[in-house]
Amino acid sequence: MPVNLSAPVAAQLLPVAGVSLGIAEAGIKRADRKDLLVIRLDEGATVAGVFTTNRFCAAPVTVAKQHLAANKGIRALVVNTGNANAGTGEQGMNAARTTCAELARLLGCTPEQVLPYSTGVIMEPLPVDKIVAGMPKAIGNLKADNWFDAAQAIMTTDIVAKAVSKQLQIGGKTVTVTGISKGSGMIHPNMATMLGYIATDAAIAQPLLQQMVSEAANRSFNCITVDGDTSTNDALMLIASGKSGAVVDAANVAAMQTVITEVATVLAQAIVRDGEGATKFITIKVEGGKDDAECKKIGYAIAHSPLVKTAFFASDPNLGRILAAIGYAGVGDLDVTRLKLYLDDVLVAENGGRAVSYQEEDGQRVMKQSDITIRVVLNRGAVNAMLWTCDFSYDYVKINASYRS
Amino acid sequence: MPVNLSAPVAAQLLPVAGVSLGIAEAGIKRADRKDLLVIRLDEGATVAGVFTTNRFCAAPVTVAKQHLAANKGIRALVVNTGNANAGTGEQGMNAARTTCAELARLLGCTPEQVLPYSTGVIMEPLPVDKIVAGMPKAIGNLKADNWFDAAQAIMTTDIVAKAVSKQLQIGGKTVTVTGISKGSGMIHPNMATMLGYIATDAAIAQPLLQQMVSEAANRSFNCITVDGDTSTNDALMLIASGKSGAVVDAANVAAMQTVITEVATVLAQAIVRDGEGATKFITIKVEGGKDDAECKKIGYAIAHSPLVKTAFFASDPNLGRILAAIGYAGVGDLDVTRLKLYLDDVLVAENGGRAVSYQEEDGQRVMKQSDITIRVVLNRGAVNAMLWTCDFSYDYVKINASYRS
Repeated sequence: MPVNLSAPVAAQLLPVAGVSLGIAEAGIKRADRKDLLVIRLDEGATVAGVFTTNRFCAAPVTVAKQHLAANKGIRALVVNTGNANAGTGEQGMNAARTTCAELARLLGCTPEQVLPYSTGVIMEPLPVDKIVAGMPKAIGNLKADNWFDAAQAIMTTDIVAKAVSKQLQIGGKTVTVTGISKGSGMIHPNMATMLGYIATDAAIAQPLLQQMVSEAANRSFNCITVDGDTSTNDALMLIASGKSGAVVDAANVAAMQTVITEVATVLAQAIVRDGEGATKFITIKVEGGKDDAECKKIGYAIAHSPLVKTAFFASDPNLGRILAAIGYAGVGDLDVTRLKLYLDDVLVAENGGRAVSYQEEDGQRVMKQSDITIRVVLNRGAVNAMLWTCDFSYDYVKINASYRS
Repeated sequence: MPVNLSAPVAAQLLPVAGVSLGIAEAGIKRADRKDLLVIRLDEGATVAGVFTTNRFCAAPVTVAKQHLAANKGIRALVVNTGNANAGTGEQGMNAARTTCAELARLLGCTPEQVLPYSTGVIMEPLPVDKIVAGMPKAIGNLKADNWFDAAQAIMTTDIVAKAVSKQLQIGGKTVTVTGISKGSGMIHPNMATMLGYIATDAAIAQPLLQQMVSEAANRSFNCITVDGDTSTNDALMLIASGKSGAVVDAANVAAMQTVITEVATVLAQAIVRDGEGATKFITIKVEGGKDDAECKKIGYAIAHSPLVKTAFFASDPNLGRILAAIGYAGVGDLDVTRLKLYLDDVLVAENGGRAVSYQEEDGQRVMKQSDITIRVVLNRGAVNAMLWTCDFSYDYVKINASYRS
């Protein structure tokens, strides 16, 4: 079950003027499941995105990047679940292009104005006929107040849908930011998460929008991991419709960035809280490092260690496993006698070993919580990093031993 | 249960002249369990070893490296299970030194002639009094024909003991090589495995012995992974007693190296076959790379992917997960359209996607086997690499969620 995470409340998801969403049950992998999402943008919207660095990136990722680069003004995004269209070679590229061409024909735009996305099983042919057949229904369903259904339509092994809205004031105008995301396995984003879509009705020029989505990804989706597997299909998209009349410029970009990053962080953390089989949500803070890279190395070594993750599943304060992970993280000149390890507020280790003040019952108390912070203070520099992960349970194995069958 | 791995047969383990082994039940963590091993060497033996690169390396690792460097002639090794004496700070260093001093006193040598080793839980104080109290019994038990019991005495979560003997002829003399090792979690050796001891009655000068143990480790223990966690206590030791009268020199070193590497490979593979919760033994061959580093990157990305490992546990040919792991392995200029993926003799993927000839039932047939080879042909160079791993099962989680409790 998701860790301290509730499904979004439909009434709290705010429409974004200039952005409408339509859903269909296209039967891509199973019948009776929302699996097709069309997002239509009014003319004049800007769009930016960050994508997976996986060399086996999916065909839709390649096509989406090409279409964004063509810079013809994006008018629609189309997302299917049930099939990743990754590891599908030239056939997969054709399938992604056909998807764009068919939607463009139905909406009256050009194929280069459509961005495609897929998520699901890898190395199986995309049933493009089913997607095309489902498009008229999704288009008939288009409406601005459809974010809740859209969040449901992009789920795969997710247990709850992920969506959030925030607002701010810019130049006396109310600006809305609404976003959705999906997880929940093959999660170790490297530029973005599996799939995330954030839209605002502010006007933001495309080069600035690209900077803002990268910044938001680096502080949110690029700080999470469930299982260390970087997906072939990761994409985080940021859409600015401009319909609020508020224009983002140097005077207000910081406030706008803060809200976008907050929305991205809520969506990213929700993916971890709903990580496959998760029973614990773990925040890892690495402080006092020489640079961000070494802080992240240590953080991810802890976050990816199956031994650490199973100890958290068991609520067992077998915390020497965290020391071992710090030790093999690859920071060659690390002086382990200088660092301190905390579990929430409990000092666990210092001077290269267990702290004299540490009591097993204090560690046990924290381990029983569902939200836990691991804090490593390196005492060798001024840089801090923070990331989020979950534990490793029987259910992770169960879900992933049976996902396809 | 271990994958196609039987316990060694005591009668097939050959004594090595000049090396005697004694075992005791010292009650270090639990009563009624062999947990203390003393290996006594006759005067004149040479000893070499490779050790973990974990920065949180255990106190005995530090002390063993210091004593080897002192070069006073090693006369004994002492190994305890049940406690790793790692993450134990200055107190742990004192405990390791006390262990050496007490054994030296009992055997009539100097503390620097003793090498200490520990394996078990991290960050708990070593019960050095129990170890010292158990020494007289272990010494009273010293005999050359004791390798079977020695293999049992160093087990932790291992299900079966690991030991093997081989012989060769050098200059008309029969040379024996016998070794033991233990796993079975926190296994991603980086210089050596958790613990491995190999002895021969050939005479090998120390600098050559160090080269030979490094070479053997690189082709055996450094090619295995169970869970990607590099231990704090890894050590592989090679002992040459010289008692056979055969001297290893330029004329015969290749033959000797081959046998030592074979013994090391049997012991290393046994650790994977008995990996925590393992139900499949997986050989990963990465061929046609530009260098060893990129072949290993791809091999370990596959070997460490929880999604690949759980698919193998389920015997589910969800082989797109292997493509995803290849894609995120970090080989930045990899052209995925040029590589081929095979499962045993079945061509699974080429030209960036599923092979036209691939049939699900062929993949299914191979996945049901207990020994499986994944072969990735990169077609970008002349370098090959091979490594071994196991799958990821419910029992891995069970063992590691309950190891300490």
